[in-house]
Amino acid sequence: MTKILSAQVLDVRFPTSHHLDGSDAMYLDPDYSAAYLILQTDHPDGLEGHSLVFTIGRGNDICVHAIKSYLSYVIGKDLEAFIDDMANFWRLICGDSQLRWLGPEKGIIYMAAGAIINAVWDLYAKLEKKPLWKLLADMTPQQLVACVDFTYIEDALKPEEAIELLQEKQASKNDRISLLEQQGYPAYTTSIGWMGYSDEKIIRLCRESMANGWNAFKMKVGTDETDDMRRAGLLREMIGESGLLMMDANQVWGVEETIERMEKFKKFQPFWIEEPTSPDDILGHAAIKKHVNPIKVATGEVCANRVIFKQFFQAKAIDICQVDTVRMAGVNEVLAVLLLAHKFEVPVCPHAGGVGLCELAQHIGMIDYISISGTMENRMIEYVDHLHEHFIHPVKIVNGRYMPPTAAGYNIELKKSSLSNYLFNSENS
Amino acid sequence: MTKILSAQVLDVRFPTSHHLDGSDAMYLDPDYSAAYLILQTDHPDGLEGHSLVFTIGRGNDICVHAIKSYLSYVIGKDLEAFIDDMANFWRLICGDSQLRWLGPEKGIIYMAAGAIINAVWDLYAKLEKKPLWKLLADMTPQQLVACVDFTYIEDALKPEEAIELLQEKQASKNDRISLLEQQGYPAYTTSIGWMGYSDEKIIRLCRESMANGWNAFKMKVGTDETDDMRRAGLLREMIGESGLLMMDANQVWGVEETIERMEKFKKFQPFWIEEPTSPDDILGHAAIKKHVNPIKVATGEVCANRVIFKQFFQAKAIDICQVDTVRMAGVNEVLAVLLLAHKFEVPVCPHAGGVGLCELAQHIGMIDYISISGTMENRMIEYVDHLHEHFIHPVKIVNGRYMPPTAAGYNIELKKSSLSNYLFNSENS
Repeated sequence: MTKILSAQVLDVRFPTSHHLDGSDAMYLDPDYSAAYLILQTDHPDGLEGHSLVFTIGRGNDICVHAIKSYLSYVIGKDLEAFIDDMANFWRLICGDSQLRWLGPEKGIIYMAAGAIINAVWDLYAKLEKKPLWKLLADMTPQQLVACVDFTYIEDALKPEEAIELLQEKQASKNDRISLLEQQGYPAYTTSIGWMGYSDEKIIRLCRESMANGWNAFKMKVGTDETDDMRRAGLLREMIGESGLLMMDANQVWGVEETIERMEKFKKFQPFWIEEPTSPDDILGHAAIKKHVNPIKVATGEVCANRVIFKQFFQAKAIDICQVDTVRMAGVNEVLAVLLLAHKFEVPVCPHAGGVGLCELAQHIGMIDYISISGTMENRMIEYVDHLHEHFIHPVKIVNGRYMPPTAAGYNIELKKSSLSNYLFNSENS
Repeated sequence: MTKILSAQVLDVRFPTSHHLDGSDAMYLDPDYSAAYLILQTDHPDGLEGHSLVFTIGRGNDICVHAIKSYLSYVIGKDLEAFIDDMANFWRLICGDSQLRWLGPEKGIIYMAAGAIINAVWDLYAKLEKKPLWKLLADMTPQQLVACVDFTYIEDALKPEEAIELLQEKQASKNDRISLLEQQGYPAYTTSIGWMGYSDEKIIRLCRESMANGWNAFKMKVGTDETDDMRRAGLLREMIGESGLLMMDANQVWGVEETIERMEKFKKFQPFWIEEPTSPDDILGHAAIKKHVNPIKVATGEVCANRVIFKQFFQAKAIDICQVDTVRMAGVNEVLAVLLLAHKFEVPVCPHAGGVGLCELAQHIGMIDYISISGTMENRMIEYVDHLHEHFIHPVKIVNGRYMPPTAAGYNIELKKSSLSNYLFNSENS
């Protein structure tokens, strides 16, 4: 047995706003930050479970506080009791009724629950000496489905149906793993088109990215229309007809405004428009989708939970599901979303960027390919070229594709030096 | 000019779980709590703005922390600069992009924003020496609509249309104020039917309530079906055919489960089924509503924001809108929901109970009646008979109806003795 002995929750902030890395129409000056959790165990190898809540600066301290509220559920407990029944462990954490009230199932308290859950998944994978994607890929359909709590989604997908869907993909899993290990998983880059960058910087970064094998690019839109159009024209010209250009409005428009804007932007042939409006507006996205076709509609990075995703799928409101790894309640809930997306035939393109999100998202894209959807078609994992140097096992990109990680765990472990160099004194916040 | 000089944010908890007051199928042992905000000013009368975030115990400290994160927006600032343009003030608070990330527009960070906004409304009403409902009732349609930010709801309701809707009710406002002052506003009581109460206690409380003029009662359902049916039978027998019986499942069922259960419960003629499933499941409620008709479907007490309400209305998914006063971002957003509900012809029955929610909710029901919907038909404010003794200006109930409050402000001010007696040491949480 492995006992969880203690925990550290750290407020880590990187001053990304100094260079406007990560800037967009909604979030003008983010400081990429992590409410960072370490679970220490008595395992002879000194195994630790790591995870984080990603924030953009102020309020990172609140997330630290929220994570601490859940620690009594895991400290002093046996890891094996949790990993023997991961759905039950999920219910234990998400079911604290007094803390649940603070969401329910959304916002700070839910991200904090996710941090606890993901740290236990990290420990689970490390105990099995596998990267998370491989831990999940080695599960039978029954085992994978048993990790998911189906509360509130059974009207759309029942466990038995989920098992059937997975069984179809079971025999060919190893072929897909081989292909993945040879060719990697498709990706697109967001690093070139932040709102705060000058045209010159965008051109330079785009040129460099193309030289490195990238063919899919995302730009930020949503402030001045003329600026957006000039930048879109620049990028389309540089990447040519064959390049994929995605646009991301970061929630700044209303429904009608999105439809008007995209009518003007369609000449740049964007592959998708991302987060055009409120991430909660299922019916709004459905209306937008109807009007902007063939431009695809994408959202999900701040989608609160599986219930919102379920409705996006039921209402045929989105073309691309951009599930995030740290916004919802951990791996279990992400699996629920992958299963739902597969049933409703919506491609999953995991949201990444921030700090550590690429390291996490790659596992999700890969397990989707190996065990669930079985395809890479219309699928890409977001990539952002910031802050990877702080991770012990950073992502490996070859020719614009994610190579499957080989280190055991969920690969979110920050270097000790980075943790101490960027530790934030929340007394000053 | 009135300057906001300083603030106190207090963690106040009442040990209600000892008697299972407030217990239901989801929240088995709540300790009604308040993250309580006081804004102090330099006004010669010593005006203070009071507000709170209501929680059910653990995590109240996180809400205190979150409220503190917004204080720099108001401390040292002139009150008049805020109240001259309340929509702009709302955008100032809700628009902090780094804090917004932690929602967005939901959960702890949004409730904290609401506390700041409501405390300023409390000051505004005190400055004008009016109870909040009267402050709002005295506004012209243009002034009232100018308090609302229409971001993300303009596709359903534009400011000009909202003004037109209000103008229809303008001439007859004073008649309704007179009627309200004579007869009060309809209410129903939830105090009799908490999950943890014995049959004997329910019978006794129901009898007492009927003797006090109550004719509308809510019971908790959602644990054991046989128990629910026995209790429903008891209550229906006691209150007779003419009494209104509401059922509240506090989110414990799935969509299909709700439909099955309500088929069995319909013989008790419930007026509504409240929170049958996930509060985020707009399409789920729409499906339920179709099946359980003529039983009405009610939800909203934990509805995250105006965008979710907008969709509940657009999808014809609910019959009753149970907006809460402290879950969303303050009075401004509640007004947005009242306007949307009126346009879509959905009656508003404000959620109350907890600690202080009755004191707040009465203002919302009354302004809806006076200036917006113009009717009390199918409308009631929830009433719960707990913790009123701690307030300086508790609600006044006569014959099962709320009498309009007369004290200036939003009437959420706790007695100094209660604040000190129930102050919680969050170091121990």
